[in-house]
Amino acid sequence: MRIFVAQINPTIGDLEGNTKKIIQMLKKARQQGCEIVLFPEMAICGYPPEDFVLHDSFITEVEAHLHKIIPETKGLMAIVGLVRRNLSTGEKALLNSAAIVKDGRLMGFYDKWLLPTYDVFDERRYFEPGHTIQTWDYKGKKIAVIICEDIWQHAGYVGQTRYPKDPVVELIPLKPDVLLNLSASPYQFQKPDVRVKVCATAAKTLHCPVILCCQVGGNDELIFDGYSVYVDKEGHLIQLGKGFEEDEMLIDLDAAGSPCAFKYDLLKDLYSALVLGVHDYFHKSGFHKAIIGLSGGIDSALVACIAKDALGAENVLAIGMPSRYSSTGSVEDARRLAKNLGVEFQIIPIEHPFQDYLDLLNPYFRGKGPDVTEENLQARIRGMILMALSNKLGYVVLSTGNKSEMATGYCTLYGDMCGGLGVISDVTKMQVYALAKMINREKEIIPKSIIDKAPSAELRPGQKDSDSLPEYSVIDAVLQGYVEDYLDAEEVAKKYKIPLEIVEDLIKKIHRAEYKRRQSPPGLRVSKKAFSKGRKIPIVQKWVK
Amino acid sequence: MRIFVAQINPTIGDLEGNTKKIIQMLKKARQQGCEIVLFPEMAICGYPPEDFVLHDSFITEVEAHLHKIIPETKGLMAIVGLVRRNLSTGEKALLNSAAIVKDGRLMGFYDKWLLPTYDVFDERRYFEPGHTIQTWDYKGKKIAVIICEDIWQHAGYVGQTRYPKDPVVELIPLKPDVLLNLSASPYQFQKPDVRVKVCATAAKTLHCPVILCCQVGGNDELIFDGYSVYVDKEGHLIQLGKGFEEDEMLIDLDAAGSPCAFKYDLLKDLYSALVLGVHDYFHKSGFHKAIIGLSGGIDSALVACIAKDALGAENVLAIGMPSRYSSTGSVEDARRLAKNLGVEFQIIPIEHPFQDYLDLLNPYFRGKGPDVTEENLQARIRGMILMALSNKLGYVVLSTGNKSEMATGYCTLYGDMCGGLGVISDVTKMQVYALAKMINREKEIIPKSIIDKAPSAELRPGQKDSDSLPEYSVIDAVLQGYVEDYLDAEEVAKKYKIPLEIVEDLIKKIHRAEYKRRQSPPGLRVSKKAFSKGRKIPIVQKWVK
Repeated sequence: MRIFVAQINPTIGDLEGNTKKIIQMLKKARQQGCEIVLFPEMAICGYPPEDFVLHDSFITEVEAHLHKIIPETKGLMAIVGLVRRNLSTGEKALLNSAAIVKDGRLMGFYDKWLLPTYDVFDERRYFEPGHTIQTWDYKGKKIAVIICEDIWQHAGYVGQTRYPKDPVVELIPLKPDVLLNLSASPYQFQKPDVRVKVCATAAKTLHCPVILCCQVGGNDELIFDGYSVYVDKEGHLIQLGKGFEEDEMLIDLDAAGSPCAFKYDLLKDLYSALVLGVHDYFHKSGFHKAIIGLSGGIDSALVACIAKDALGAENVLAIGMPSRYSSTGSVEDARRLAKNLGVEFQIIPIEHPFQDYLDLLNPYFRGKGPDVTEENLQARIRGMILMALSNKLGYVVLSTGNKSEMATGYCTLYGDMCGGLGVISDVTKMQVYALAKMINREKEIIPKSIIDKAPSAELRPGQKDSDSLPEYSVIDAVLQGYVEDYLDAEEVAKKYKIPLEIVEDLIKKIHRAEYKRRQSPPGLRVSKKAFSKGRKIPIVQKWVK
Repeated sequence: MRIFVAQINPTIGDLEGNTKKIIQMLKKARQQGCEIVLFPEMAICGYPPEDFVLHDSFITEVEAHLHKIIPETKGLMAIVGLVRRNLSTGEKALLNSAAIVKDGRLMGFYDKWLLPTYDVFDERRYFEPGHTIQTWDYKGKKIAVIICEDIWQHAGYVGQTRYPKDPVVELIPLKPDVLLNLSASPYQFQKPDVRVKVCATAAKTLHCPVILCCQVGGNDELIFDGYSVYVDKEGHLIQLGKGFEEDEMLIDLDAAGSPCAFKYDLLKDLYSALVLGVHDYFHKSGFHKAIIGLSGGIDSALVACIAKDALGAENVLAIGMPSRYSSTGSVEDARRLAKNLGVEFQIIPIEHPFQDYLDLLNPYFRGKGPDVTEENLQARIRGMILMALSNKLGYVVLSTGNKSEMATGYCTLYGDMCGGLGVISDVTKMQVYALAKMINREKEIIPKSIIDKAPSAELRPGQKDSDSLPEYSVIDAVLQGYVEDYLDAEEVAKKYKIPLEIVEDLIKKIHRAEYKRRQSPPGLRVSKKAFSKGRKIPIVQKWVK
């Protein structure tokens, strides 16, 4: 039996475009002598469609597009993900389903049992869990079909949830010949590897091969990495789809496959995820050009590299905006980086408007001395310049703040937080350094002086990040413990050997910066717990004082 | 039997403060000869506690605070809302519960059956539905206890949900003598009235009185209006708690109550909701002073009135920031309004920085003529001035954009969209007019010229909102039909008799402005469907092109 895994990149709501892509894949599969074609979860509408599914006309159209696909399955069996109406009883009016289509006929549906409702997922908001399972006959073979989360609980990887049923276990008595899984499983650091383990666990339980077809592409904050999986009935990895691009995987279940190892480069993957996230955010919405404030610091340097790889050097405009506190070195570093990347670089000094604001506002400052106000003014002037160029010339501003800054509020609302997309807002400062070093592995793209200098916002004389913040390694440990793993202050202090008062102070900073983060641009999510999506914390609260 | 309804205003996460308040209420109830004391849903931690409940230490502390309350119930029965661990099986590890405490002893818990997971609610993210129900004995009387949503389905008012079970129906065979409901039911326009109908329906089904205790207060975007309800067994309204403030309701079930009518003033309630929302956003987070850009237009005028009523005139600073395009009339109108309100008013003209930016940026504008860029520059200079004064003097900026502008994107990101709180971002332009007229009912607070002039952003010569937008009555109808009621373009056009192309164009505008709204300040939610909370729409999408 030959199976074609269509690892496609759908766009949310582009029913026509996605359907066209699905039909193309069916043709290719047929040309290549395949019999079964597997698509990702919700392939027709893209995942996650969010509240679009609450529009009745959206559901009607999705169902109509399924009926455009059905006649195109002559000689094939196709498994296509979609949202559809729940015509039976139940709390919710919709189902997250797989249509099983054979030779131009709709055979039926499988409805997802396990509906993730935690972190970035809110499937219980829309969908009723399915409650029946069967195998589907194809030339005497029994094909089992499940959807994404359905396979995860069996291997013990579901967040803050313990579903009462396990579709993998329910399949045991049905003795399937192969298990197919339609997925839209968002990337997070170190996750692709886990997906293979999850498939292997199910394969071993069911004594049959498992094939998981993943959506690939960026949809707002979420990045889907692809890496579709084929494991044999012993749970050995036999084939792996490409990461971070569309792919077609041809699987011959009758051929003896030899196990391969999933060797992936964690940092390279993280970088590829960010590049894909930027690329799709732009291209799926019809934008092509990005503008970046290039300070000579490491964060904007990394974002410039990502932007160049995502959009092409010719579509990136870098602006240096020195103030009276910028070092000459920083401007020169920025210029050298731009040259290395081949991107246009302009310098627009901000001294004039800065002095102007100081003169204008001084009478209202009631005799108070310089403080964070003057620092924010500089950051906001830069934001205004970038936004003006964006408005006039059609560039989208890329925001360059990293996760450690966003966590502690070491950033200016409406200043360096400006932008259409937060490229590295879920990348910690330590990861920023690691990525910069990786970029320079073969040759120096990011000037070494950018990587080596002590982090500074250069918003007052001699300023260093370390004046206001603990070491970034400490901040990042607290982020890991408190934000990602929900440990309390004592547990974090103990686990990472950090003085309790420093941990407590950082936790306070994290909560005090909540109002800023609420107004940040959507940020690409690459960690287990991002601030930008999947974390809901009140602004006004007295739990952390 | 005498029942004390403690309509309190808890702060999210303020376990100590909320517990103190609960214990005070118990004392008062005892002093007033009451026997049963009813608190709102999640009274110990405040509603909604959001992802705080995912911290194990939070749950431990909530449970510990319940045990501080228990000994304080000598001679009383107290029904207290809280979150607690689900020690039984089930998908989620937590329960949304009512503790039933009698005379210093914990009798047991009722766990909420119906968990709203739509609009602003996401209870399935955290909680497992309860599945048992009973009555609780108090001196031979059978007391039934349910929580918020549990009572709504019976009357048919649940959004996009059809729960398979109805706790009210399950109570019929138990023949309760009274039904108590712990609620945290957020305000929306025209909703308080519905709450009475919902109680009346349950009363008629069960032939017993229904008492519903509501949380009151503002928690971020959500405003809880109070208006606790007591209906007799025929479903007649006998007593109503106060709206928009804490209240204690004494109910004697043995006394013959005479039915009263719930006559409320829709506009006055809307205004009170906004005042409470601003008040609590500030006071619960330790801020007291607000700064507002007062343009001489109706939106900022309304926000100034609300701010004065929420924070006191002495805590409001209004700034006029005229540009070369501002009319003299507007500045004078702003000054008169400030005088009428008794708030400080300063004028900071923006011509200097504006010209400065134009000179600075012109070389980079590549010969392109004036467009929206120059308009945004003015709005952003104003935003920067307000933020600088906020930073230096400790004022929180109030954002003054209305819902109709936020919908269509007729607002400047990082400009007039700046602020700590969007006061009227869920109030349509037509409601803004209605509120302004209401404010002037007894005497002219808002100068008539502000209300009468054609809406204009005054960002270019002779500009009027109507140059770029249809009439606000048309925009507001599309908001109602498309955003609140999920109608499609044809249905909206037909229902409101608006040409289809205008409806379609407005729907496109709504989606194109999604990226702006994502970065707007949290906005007080007062409608059935706000942009600020409870609506999840992808930014990058091709459903609405």
